[in-house]
Amino acid sequence: MRGTLYGLGVGPGDPELVTLKAARILASVPVVAYLQTANGAGMARRIAASLIPDGVKEIPIVMPMASDRAPARAAYDEAARAIAARLDKGEDVALLCEGDPLFYGSFMYIHQRLHGDHRIETIPGVSSLNAAAAALGRPIAARNDIFSVIPAPVDAARLRTAIAAADAVAIIKVGRHFDAVRAVLGEMELVDRAVLVTAASCENQTVVPLASLPDGPRPYFSMILLYKGAEPW
Amino acid sequence: MRGTLYGLGVGPGDPELVTLKAARILASVPVVAYLQTANGAGMARRIAASLIPDGVKEIPIVMPMASDRAPARAAYDEAARAIAARLDKGEDVALLCEGDPLFYGSFMYIHQRLHGDHRIETIPGVSSLNAAAAALGRPIAARNDIFSVIPAPVDAARLRTAIAAADAVAIIKVGRHFDAVRAVLGEMELVDRAVLVTAASCENQTVVPLASLPDGPRPYFSMILLYKGAEPW
Repeated sequence: MRGTLYGLGVGPGDPELVTLKAARILASVPVVAYLQTANGAGMARRIAASLIPDGVKEIPIVMPMASDRAPARAAYDEAARAIAARLDKGEDVALLCEGDPLFYGSFMYIHQRLHGDHRIETIPGVSSLNAAAAALGRPIAARNDIFSVIPAPVDAARLRTAIAAADAVAIIKVGRHFDAVRAVLGEMELVDRAVLVTAASCENQTVVPLASLPDGPRPYFSMILLYKGAEPW
Repeated sequence: MRGTLYGLGVGPGDPELVTLKAARILASVPVVAYLQTANGAGMARRIAASLIPDGVKEIPIVMPMASDRAPARAAYDEAARAIAARLDKGEDVALLCEGDPLFYGSFMYIHQRLHGDHRIETIPGVSSLNAAAAALGRPIAARNDIFSVIPAPVDAARLRTAIAAADAVAIIKVGRHFDAVRAVLGEMELVDRAVLVTAASCENQTVVPLASLPDGPRPYFSMILLYKGAEPW
């Protein structure tokens, strides 16, 4: 009897935003795996820390921050082999994922390596989008709004077209792209309708109007929320 | 000392997808409020049922299914008054919201009536989007994809423009708009890339390729997921 790999969403940062289902699975699995990178090193592991029983085996997936993709591929290959070895012994493995595993997550890199040969179950989690809405304290989309999630690294033309087609927008992965994104929003006369949310649901959470921020890079875990229409209420 | 109104996300349907935070608050509040409508009557109440202690006071918000908006406004006015009366007595109130309260939710109709005078806190929840991704078992958005949520009632021209601007799409509120949406996807030669997910995370969850479905209306709680590019992995 082989084990099951759980893609386990642990939510946006607040350890209380883990689901009952994720907490139950964490209390029962003999092995947890998680990513470690320079940006947000071990964030999923930190979120889940109080829910991982003593003595659980750990598989850290150490992610090299190189600009070419070969070292990352090698790291995923090695992690997939280590996880598969546990599954083959009949042990269940929980791969901890911040936010939701299948929404802009790195879970897919392990999933694609193992889903042909192993049983995989995904446990959805609270996304940072929803935590950002709670931080803002008003709806990020309502009624028949078209709502788009746009990664900041896309080129300016795509960014402009996607914003034009939507009523409400979340721009994710802001980081070092902040100035370029704000320039596009400036051309579209939308800066006054946007806020930057950083570390949503965490103790250091901030919500700041875009217009009041100085130029320069922002944290990786920050997101611009934009509502183009009248206020949703 | 007045009470706090919690906009409490209870997730997409599976009672285990409630967060630890929502469960803690439900165990402590003396009053819960929730919507009752013809579509999905009392769904949030049913999701949270096992977490509501005996003896808690309940404020059902009975939503008339009339085509004009006046009766709904009157129902929200009345519910806001009933909730405010409890808050004024110093009691905390949890307003149960399926999915996430601030993402296409009806929480905003109570929030807009009370936020000036009362303390309100939103507890984010797992959205049906993320549950649909788990049901599908593959990423609904990845890397630098542009991902758009489009309510099915928008007109065909807006639907077409928004789909064209995105890499991945969720079309929500499908219900009686199914044939019209599938016609647009047909014109865009995208039917073969779409699935219909119904009742994600619930016992009666289904995932069906769009091409294999007969014409006709679908359940209100169903969503079309569409990936335009190559498979995300």
